[in-house]
Amino acid sequence: MMTLRRLLLVSNSTLHGGGYLEHCQDQIQQLLGEQVKRVLFIPYALHNRDDYAKIARQKFESLGYALDSIHEAADPVDSVLKSEAIFIGGGNTFRLLKALYDNNLLPVIRKKVIEDGIPYIGSSAGTNVATISINTTNDMPIVYPPSLQALGLVPFNINPHFLDPDVNSKHMGETREQRIMQFHEEPDTPPVLALREGCMLLVEGSKATLLGITKARLFLR
Amino acid sequence: MMTLRRLLLVSNSTLHGGGYLEHCQDQIQQLLGEQVKRVLFIPYALHNRDDYAKIARQKFESLGYALDSIHEAADPVDSVLKSEAIFIGGGNTFRLLKALYDNNLLPVIRKKVIEDGIPYIGSSAGTNVATISINTTNDMPIVYPPSLQALGLVPFNINPHFLDPDVNSKHMGETREQRIMQFHEEPDTPPVLALREGCMLLVEGSKATLLGITKARLFLR
Repeated sequence: MMTLRRLLLVSNSTLHGGGYLEHCQDQIQQLLGEQVKRVLFIPYALHNRDDYAKIARQKFESLGYALDSIHEAADPVDSVLKSEAIFIGGGNTFRLLKALYDNNLLPVIRKKVIEDGIPYIGSSAGTNVATISINTTNDMPIVYPPSLQALGLVPFNINPHFLDPDVNSKHMGETREQRIMQFHEEPDTPPVLALREGCMLLVEGSKATLLGITKARLFLR
Repeated sequence: MMTLRRLLLVSNSTLHGGGYLEHCQDQIQQLLGEQVKRVLFIPYALHNRDDYAKIARQKFESLGYALDSIHEAADPVDSVLKSEAIFIGGGNTFRLLKALYDNNLLPVIRKKVIEDGIPYIGSSAGTNVATISINTTNDMPIVYPPSLQALGLVPFNINPHFLDPDVNSKHMGETREQRIMQFHEEPDTPPVLALREGCMLLVEGSKATLLGITKARLFLR
């Protein structure tokens, strides 16, 4: 089946020295275009959803879009079904995925994006949950979701906020590269696209384009 | 019930510039003393268990102890039941905890340590699994254990390899401090002892002593 998907998967919400979503605002506007009037925001990755929605609303309004936060909706599933575009923000990926499961949102978001072709924007944790699984998140497992399987909007995993090994470091914890290689020691594990901060992936149908200036690394099993 | 537990919970196996377990070898010898002749090693946190057991065996033999690796035992549960002391090494905490569950080892290790009072040494991932849960590991969730609940040998959580915030960093991922605070945004979460590299906790019965020179931070909800 041909999929109409149109995704913007951003490594990080804020780039050092810049404002919230500033480094990707042109790409957001290009993705949403002039047809989309309202964006549905999913703030589940942070604890304070009201504050988070305020920040996101301010930014999207400045770009010319109204923003509804799903946590203010009486029926979250219904709000997804009626949405014109979805933005899932960063924070803790485990908390985000658990809330998506708790609210039965995974199949309906998937349907809207894959079958109906509404634009999806993810940043950081919102990018992680767009992939096959959150097995390659950097986040602390502060809660236990019923599965690590995620939306599966793309057939690979992503590691956002990718950091190259620091040769001068005296810290003995595993580097990001070592962690991803440990993932690939496990059987049947998918490719991992490691997006450095400042970088993002635009997915249109079966075509993926790397945007931003910091580039990415692709890890294969 | 009084517990006889005797634990050495080490932040990291290797300190920058030193050899494997070198920075904690005196404390290991003091914990094991002269009564213990053989140590049972659990290498599940790394993929290559043979290589890992070789490294651990070499170190423990140099300290005067024989080492049996549980992955070479016909019956892992039986090898725990017959053990004089247990050492769980570092690596990936999710992989380690899943293997402990897969081999039904949690209750039997707990019984040996808490009721029979055999010495337990953990480093990094082996320290994480000694606590209430692995909710405060730094590791990537490369596999999905049936629960994040761990051995519960102490009534709190630990964050090993603790790193203080780097004020000069341009990286926008959460600091370790922010991640632990996100954990404490969740209800009913226990204290987290953040052990900097080079530091370790000696637990004897109800008394805990911080050893090493780098100190620790205690985070309360």
